[in-house]
Amino acid sequence: MTSTSRRWVLASTPNGEPKTSDFEMASVVLPPLREGGIIVRNTFISVDPGVLDRLTRDSYAPQLRPGEVVDGFTVGVVTASQNPRFEVGDRVTCGNGWRESYVSSGRGVMKLHPKVFGPPISERAAIGALGVSGLTAYFGVRGVAQARSGETVLVSSAAGAVGSTAIQVARNLGCRVVGIAGSEDKARLVVEDLGAEACIDYRKEPDLSAAIARTCPDGVDVFFDNVGGKTLDAALLNMSQGGRVAISGQVSEYSRVQPRGIRAVGEFINRRITMTGFVVWDFLPQFREAMAEMRGWMVSGQLVFREEIIDGFENAPAAFVGLFRGENRGRRLIRLASGD
Amino acid sequence: MTSTSRRWVLASTPNGEPKTSDFEMASVVLPPLREGGIIVRNTFISVDPGVLDRLTRDSYAPQLRPGEVVDGFTVGVVTASQNPRFEVGDRVTCGNGWRESYVSSGRGVMKLHPKVFGPPISERAAIGALGVSGLTAYFGVRGVAQARSGETVLVSSAAGAVGSTAIQVARNLGCRVVGIAGSEDKARLVVEDLGAEACIDYRKEPDLSAAIARTCPDGVDVFFDNVGGKTLDAALLNMSQGGRVAISGQVSEYSRVQPRGIRAVGEFINRRITMTGFVVWDFLPQFREAMAEMRGWMVSGQLVFREEIIDGFENAPAAFVGLFRGENRGRRLIRLASGD
Repeated sequence: MTSTSRRWVLASTPNGEPKTSDFEMASVVLPPLREGGIIVRNTFISVDPGVLDRLTRDSYAPQLRPGEVVDGFTVGVVTASQNPRFEVGDRVTCGNGWRESYVSSGRGVMKLHPKVFGPPISERAAIGALGVSGLTAYFGVRGVAQARSGETVLVSSAAGAVGSTAIQVARNLGCRVVGIAGSEDKARLVVEDLGAEACIDYRKEPDLSAAIARTCPDGVDVFFDNVGGKTLDAALLNMSQGGRVAISGQVSEYSRVQPRGIRAVGEFINRRITMTGFVVWDFLPQFREAMAEMRGWMVSGQLVFREEIIDGFENAPAAFVGLFRGENRGRRLIRLASGD
Repeated sequence: MTSTSRRWVLASTPNGEPKTSDFEMASVVLPPLREGGIIVRNTFISVDPGVLDRLTRDSYAPQLRPGEVVDGFTVGVVTASQNPRFEVGDRVTCGNGWRESYVSSGRGVMKLHPKVFGPPISERAAIGALGVSGLTAYFGVRGVAQARSGETVLVSSAAGAVGSTAIQVARNLGCRVVGIAGSEDKARLVVEDLGAEACIDYRKEPDLSAAIARTCPDGVDVFFDNVGGKTLDAALLNMSQGGRVAISGQVSEYSRVQPRGIRAVGEFINRRITMTGFVVWDFLPQFREAMAEMRGWMVSGQLVFREEIIDGFENAPAAFVGLFRGENRGRRLIRLASGD
């Protein structure tokens, strides 16, 4: 028996902001299952802004070249197994891109244990609050920036997948939390649904630094940044003495041919700022503990994760492109025909 | 008895690179000595590039306005005292600017203890290796960046007052040390006199990042930076995983009306870089211990401090302006008529 699977590959390297025509769909015949192999049928795929950085240059991983499958995290179900670690029906998560199905040796495929990903928690949490986005927020706020109760924490991209979790993690730690988001709707959501004390709609603020000064009158002790560029500069001008900046992404830079960077480097000296870049995998040994705490918050309602579910594998590029136009309201997930 | 003292005041706020005409000399009658006061006659005054930042904008201290005395560290001798803490003849150091003599309540005036500043160590060390420059280097390398034996340490402005000390501190800690300096002469000095393994002459390198890659093939574990801008960007592109950047100054920025800043902020994530700004006063409680270790290195010949002594109070502005043209070969000190 042979079966085919569709996948999205890069058609051409984006030049500036990505277009749907930068992607093309390909259909491949899956290789036969061998000893040790499994077949996984994906149910959900995430589309993440950080992927643009991979499409355009060497960064945390080598640049993705035309013809290669686009990066993305997935959850799916094992449909065939010749690997003793997996049984048919197992729910799994993997990071091997925009594919309907795939054959794997099992390396890099993680089983979703029902104790964590069982009711009331959906398996989608593996690519959400309990996946890379959520854990990035958790470790950025808690591990890198070491936010403490009573401190002021500012979070950029506060309505996005990472930012919305960072807001809640900081709030759960007893911090005073302020967000920055790109519309009145998003700003309202960050305050009303996520529990921030205030949220700046940067599109309405000609002077973002002044807006931060207004909402964080005692200075910013921790800035969790996913945006970079002008946003990061505005925050640097408002850090308190000894303030910490954790950067997990620089979304405003990914669609630029030349990065803008930051100007306010002198503030590092004036304000004794420490800035640290990180990726979630740096904290791998602490994942289990973090997931337990995060799950507890989810179950008690102290952590909500916003998803936007978009139906149809064919819509992945449009969903991705929309991220750079500020369309999304949380993590964008593509639901495949087999998803529930 | 009244006495007069000359001082250099800011004539006009520098616009870009400073000119000698930005300064003017004023003569003032010293106020009479009151209960608790001292009179100090300076013997040496330092001219420091970091001062330009104060002349042009609010930074670590409020901007200096025209008519105010220019910042600088001094050593001098007490010539009159009505303060029980000081005796006539005491050697002291202070940071109250380009003045021949001054009257003080004694606040901010530190006595130079002969145990530290006695032979073979000159009192000038109080504004050199054992003063703000030297301690900035010490705490940057050791306290902020936590350089460890075997690591690669890169130092910008390596022939300058702070940089030349940082090179030696890192070498004394067992690090592999590479400098960046602005001429062949300076680069030779950094290697031959200060013990760096290599020194890049950035004026001969069209691609500074490539030059760093060549001299630091295993990556830069610690970058001690006093320059900023393009130099900092080039270093960021060469940091090893988990590399630390300590910034004590951003000299390339001080003469710019708009700072250039840095572009390579994405490298913070790719390379897990931590960058921290500091000033030496953050480490005040550790000064005594640091000075003891530094003095030991000086006595044993493991720490040399390059000074350039320029005679005549009237030459202070020219000496200062020359710092921004790369003229200096170490700390520039002005020797006053009374200096020895």
